[in-house]
Amino acid sequence: MKKHNFSAGPCILAPEVINGASKAVLDFNEMNLSLLEISHRDKNFVEVMDEARELSKELMCLDEDFEVLFLQGGASLQFCMAPYNYMNEKGKAGYLITGTWAKKAAAEASLFGEIENIGSSEDKNFNYIPTKLNIGNELDYFHCTSNNTIVGTQIKKFPECKVPLICDMSSDIFSRNIDFNQFSMIYAGAQKNLGPAGATLVAVRKSGLGKTLRQLPSILDYRKHIKSESMFNTPPVFSIYTSLLSLRWMKKEGGLDVIEKRNDLKANFIYKEIDRNNLFSGTANFEDRSTMNACFLLHNESLKEKFNTLCKEAGITGINGHRSVGGYRASMYNALPLGSVETLVDVMKHLEKIS
Amino acid sequence: MKKHNFSAGPCILAPEVINGASKAVLDFNEMNLSLLEISHRDKNFVEVMDEARELSKELMCLDEDFEVLFLQGGASLQFCMAPYNYMNEKGKAGYLITGTWAKKAAAEASLFGEIENIGSSEDKNFNYIPTKLNIGNELDYFHCTSNNTIVGTQIKKFPECKVPLICDMSSDIFSRNIDFNQFSMIYAGAQKNLGPAGATLVAVRKSGLGKTLRQLPSILDYRKHIKSESMFNTPPVFSIYTSLLSLRWMKKEGGLDVIEKRNDLKANFIYKEIDRNNLFSGTANFEDRSTMNACFLLHNESLKEKFNTLCKEAGITGINGHRSVGGYRASMYNALPLGSVETLVDVMKHLEKIS
Repeated sequence: MKKHNFSAGPCILAPEVINGASKAVLDFNEMNLSLLEISHRDKNFVEVMDEARELSKELMCLDEDFEVLFLQGGASLQFCMAPYNYMNEKGKAGYLITGTWAKKAAAEASLFGEIENIGSSEDKNFNYIPTKLNIGNELDYFHCTSNNTIVGTQIKKFPECKVPLICDMSSDIFSRNIDFNQFSMIYAGAQKNLGPAGATLVAVRKSGLGKTLRQLPSILDYRKHIKSESMFNTPPVFSIYTSLLSLRWMKKEGGLDVIEKRNDLKANFIYKEIDRNNLFSGTANFEDRSTMNACFLLHNESLKEKFNTLCKEAGITGINGHRSVGGYRASMYNALPLGSVETLVDVMKHLEKIS
Repeated sequence: MKKHNFSAGPCILAPEVINGASKAVLDFNEMNLSLLEISHRDKNFVEVMDEARELSKELMCLDEDFEVLFLQGGASLQFCMAPYNYMNEKGKAGYLITGTWAKKAAAEASLFGEIENIGSSEDKNFNYIPTKLNIGNELDYFHCTSNNTIVGTQIKKFPECKVPLICDMSSDIFSRNIDFNQFSMIYAGAQKNLGPAGATLVAVRKSGLGKTLRQLPSILDYRKHIKSESMFNTPPVFSIYTSLLSLRWMKKEGGLDVIEKRNDLKANFIYKEIDRNNLFSGTANFEDRSTMNACFLLHNESLKEKFNTLCKEAGITGINGHRSVGGYRASMYNALPLGSVETLVDVMKHLEKIS
């Protein structure tokens, strides 16, 4: 049976991406060799890397100052690479604490210098995005998380600031068309809208690097990665190739404007039902609701088993809330069809009818 | 046409590993979901991680003090994780400089403390392994590289030492049965004998950690990875699953004793021809020759085009020497069949005959 995959990440990818990835494992570019067994210096793979970097820039309309890198280690490695590259010895950075991951990012950065909490929504279990932020010009940088997977909130308008703006976009990159040039550095684990776990996209302004006197281990130095065209060491070949297939798919579908419209449609569809159906309620502040992750509660404890069974029967998978917060979470990344959201909404309506 | 893949890495994997990996991308464990789109917390993947860690320990006969982790970032990230975890502030570590990668490892470690070159073969382009090493008891650790891919040398007997012995086994892990318990920490990028690029195997003694007062970023702290059972953050799911398929294949084939015999056979076969055939000569010191990478020269410049053409016609790929040294290099990782080496030797004999 066809599954409706609401997994929060790693998550659903477009069928043609999955088929293309599977095929390349057997035979890549008609080389009679698997993608897994060729040198990353082979021109067939160098072309993949170059196209993936270029297409990422194109989709986000990044200006010429930006370089796109495909690294390893996930967002968690960026939690320490960002301060390593941007924070002066005895420096200070501002963090917006909108969820568990933002908090972790700040905690890691505190090993490198002073951290100022520019705002926090921890008082209400991170269910909103703080506004009216005071971002001082003395900061080495300001860091925020564009989308909070666990609690289902999303920054709709990024704060203006005069210091480098660094953003963890792991869970909503390529989901909407915003002005990506307002950032100094963007990073994102691939495993939501881009590709399989194991690659991390980093888009970084060249002009913002090399401003600290800190000595950097080479593998943590963005300048080294830029200089070697994202091949400082053996890159995660398979994850990058599959990410390229996703990037091509996004371009073919019409780019980020089209993708954004679809994501808005899906999100509106599920939130409308969450708000209408008395059995359920959303947990995130209305205006901060994420288009990627809709978090909601089923109030009547005794209906949970029934709801879970109905979901299972309908082929719905991956809608349990994060283990730290419970409840339900419907993650609707780029590749999730509207039909899957319709199926979930039907199940919610059906539960209402029979209860 | 069937290819004979002598690529130095990423490199050949067993056909059943490649087929299994391709299949799992389409449908994993009959879940009707791709391996790429399930949560790493799904029990289907947690079982993969657990089995891969356990089977690695089993194949290397590691004692109970060891934990095996599957991390990201390649050996290059370990170049900085090793000193981060083992070197005291103002500490000192010993490095054996047997090649480009060993030299890079030492250079990265020098950011963290003093480095003593315990031995170096740079005087002869790294074509031998230094012996009679004096490893002081005051060192925080001693680091060596078991196999040098670029120059084709390999440590046959590891030095006895009273300080923690750390080894980069990226290019010969699982290729032979040695006493792996003599090490305190072993690391290896997956992309030679284990799996696709993007995973790094780390086998580490728990009792050796936590001895420095250094503050570690979480993602670079082996203890954090051990505590979270190698799931500190989203792991490189596909690379780990494919590595598990390789580990299962190695076990099924008879384990490291059988693998070692095969590798010896293949290596003897090519080296015999290199020594016999007057057109060629080996570049590595006789007793230090690697069973993984046989490096050799074709003396007569004018025969190169012919040799390259003959190789190509025979389906031989990936035998160019590393761009830093030139010449030829036949990499014969675990999954390379003896038949491929026979084909290469036939081509070498044929070249002799017609020239």
